[in-house]
Amino acid sequence: MAEDFKVTPWEVTGDIDYDLLQERFGTTPIDGALLDRMSRYGEIHPMLRRGIFYSHRDMVRILDDYDKGERFTLYTGRGPSGNTHLGHLMPWIFNKWIQDTFDVPMYFQMTDDEKFLFKDLTLEDTKRMAYENALDFAALGFDPDKTRIIVDTENIDTLYPLALKVAKKVTFSTAKAVFGFDNSTNIGSIFFTAIQAAPAFLESEIRGRPVPCLIPCGIDQDPHFRVTRDVAPGLGYPKPSLIYCKMFPGLSGGDKMSSSDENATIYTTDGPKAVRKKVGKAFTGGCVSVEEQREKGGNPEVCAVFKYFYYLFEEDDSKLDELADSCRRGEILCGECKMRLTERINVFLEDHQAKREEARDIVDSMAFGGFEWNKEAKR
Amino acid sequence: MAEDFKVTPWEVTGDIDYDLLQERFGTTPIDGALLDRMSRYGEIHPMLRRGIFYSHRDMVRILDDYDKGERFTLYTGRGPSGNTHLGHLMPWIFNKWIQDTFDVPMYFQMTDDEKFLFKDLTLEDTKRMAYENALDFAALGFDPDKTRIIVDTENIDTLYPLALKVAKKVTFSTAKAVFGFDNSTNIGSIFFTAIQAAPAFLESEIRGRPVPCLIPCGIDQDPHFRVTRDVAPGLGYPKPSLIYCKMFPGLSGGDKMSSSDENATIYTTDGPKAVRKKVGKAFTGGCVSVEEQREKGGNPEVCAVFKYFYYLFEEDDSKLDELADSCRRGEILCGECKMRLTERINVFLEDHQAKREEARDIVDSMAFGGFEWNKEAKR
Repeated sequence: MAEDFKVTPWEVTGDIDYDLLQERFGTTPIDGALLDRMSRYGEIHPMLRRGIFYSHRDMVRILDDYDKGERFTLYTGRGPSGNTHLGHLMPWIFNKWIQDTFDVPMYFQMTDDEKFLFKDLTLEDTKRMAYENALDFAALGFDPDKTRIIVDTENIDTLYPLALKVAKKVTFSTAKAVFGFDNSTNIGSIFFTAIQAAPAFLESEIRGRPVPCLIPCGIDQDPHFRVTRDVAPGLGYPKPSLIYCKMFPGLSGGDKMSSSDENATIYTTDGPKAVRKKVGKAFTGGCVSVEEQREKGGNPEVCAVFKYFYYLFEEDDSKLDELADSCRRGEILCGECKMRLTERINVFLEDHQAKREEARDIVDSMAFGGFEWNKEAKR
Repeated sequence: MAEDFKVTPWEVTGDIDYDLLQERFGTTPIDGALLDRMSRYGEIHPMLRRGIFYSHRDMVRILDDYDKGERFTLYTGRGPSGNTHLGHLMPWIFNKWIQDTFDVPMYFQMTDDEKFLFKDLTLEDTKRMAYENALDFAALGFDPDKTRIIVDTENIDTLYPLALKVAKKVTFSTAKAVFGFDNSTNIGSIFFTAIQAAPAFLESEIRGRPVPCLIPCGIDQDPHFRVTRDVAPGLGYPKPSLIYCKMFPGLSGGDKMSSSDENATIYTTDGPKAVRKKVGKAFTGGCVSVEEQREKGGNPEVCAVFKYFYYLFEEDDSKLDELADSCRRGEILCGECKMRLTERINVFLEDHQAKREEARDIVDSMAFGGFEWNKEAKR
């Protein structure tokens, strides 16, 4: 039962038991002591306070080094297989908070090669999506002087020598055990983890000395970074540290918002009507009738609408508690709650979409090594 | 017994039965009809006449297309793991003859990534060797306007998208069966065949239409090109044609000159004394005493010195026959024969070494995409 879920970089299915997942992967819970420690650098982000970013590897070392004056480099990424949705923005928003709080440079890797290899997409598709996704990333306000976007096929000249060094140290046995590959896996997919490892070592390589690296991302990416960490010492690079979040929930009540269910997925380019319609159909913790709900109250624990407030759309803890309480007491009904969320999302998206348009110039300046974004993709 | 040999792109051991190898690989013998056909384009090269280039795949299609006015692109390569020796030059000399005879462009791929992945060498080592090997290649007089040298790590931006398309179509099963990989093989080595496939499709990709490709090389490379040919139709590229040679013999009597036996290997940078010494120690078909040899004669069939005349240093068939006859009759002894070969090799190398120095400017102009050869390597 509790085992009935699967989390890999390419597939997330079932009801995820995040504690069990942490145990399986061997990552460390983010506890009160670590939160206290992190509060020294700035007000703790709600995603930390609420246990959305909930697990880590070697976060303490990153902070110890930082206290000694050694700045880390941030690294996260995106597999550009489709339009950006709210679930993609969530960890990027957290990355932005880390960049602001610690004033550190960052690499954002777009794995257009990965999505070509693992999905039924052409390289032209994934490159075009990389550009579209980059606009959403840049719209969040990362420091343009300190942030560089890597597109694998555009920056392969830089990544490849690093990836070769990684690949030489990883056997098929390891790839099989870590990713669940078998004899039918294509040889590009088998090699790919070496490309995802490369940016973790890039700053050390460029500076010619060990530079700590922190990777905030979804916990589904841990298999890649276990491999990256295992090979690091043999290559003379520091093991990257990781801070992991849970998957952003789907509107239909699933554990992960997924592009495969378009109606339960809110894209960054959705208009107000689409958002209203999608939120309107969301899975809630309400009862079958208004009368029953007024009497028995709703259940925010299982409600997708409540999760949206919790994950992204209500930063104020007391207001969030108030909402949960009034739901449990049957004071607020699902319709009203959905209207409130729709309003919040639409306000957010209106602002985001404006910034997304402004980001067209910014992504040019963020292109690692000054590559030119695919002209057709720019329209 | 006859099965007691192994030929892969990375290992050649035992006494090679070339007919059996051809059967195992499924390649086609070069017969009299094909030689006749090829003689229409120019005087047949001694390596063809003597069966050194002895096997092929789809050579007839290349000639049919050529007759219709469709020029092919030549492609061959080198894994830069050490200094160039005579065994490396042999197929390049044949490539030069093809370029001259058919007036065609050529790509020469230096797989510095491969040698890094498969051997105990650094990328700096293999890149440095790529430059040294390129000097030997260019010294042979390829048309600088029609010849481009690819170094994998320098030209990965061009190769990688092609390699990804290949890799997506090759499973680990296939790689295992074709190359004998197992679970302990590193993931870079598993991916590598996709990089070696890429130049076969490069001209078609650049011109945006199918361009035939001919690859003259050692038959040990056939596993790579079986894979390349299998995926070609699915990618919309023509299957490359192949023309294969036997391995250049070692001076110690082995079936392949190998850098692992330095004293039985003549490098292109060897001086006259080194050559005399190495040839002096060569394995011959002579008898234990002068008297016995005068009486019974020698055996040119097993003699490494005779093989050198046969493969590279006596183009005149009648003179070669004369030499074999006078050996069998006991008229010429091993010492004299070795002196003649030493002289021939030294004359060749003196000229080659002068051209090798002149080639320093040429290799710059041949660098694919205009990359700059590694400065440290230039000394």
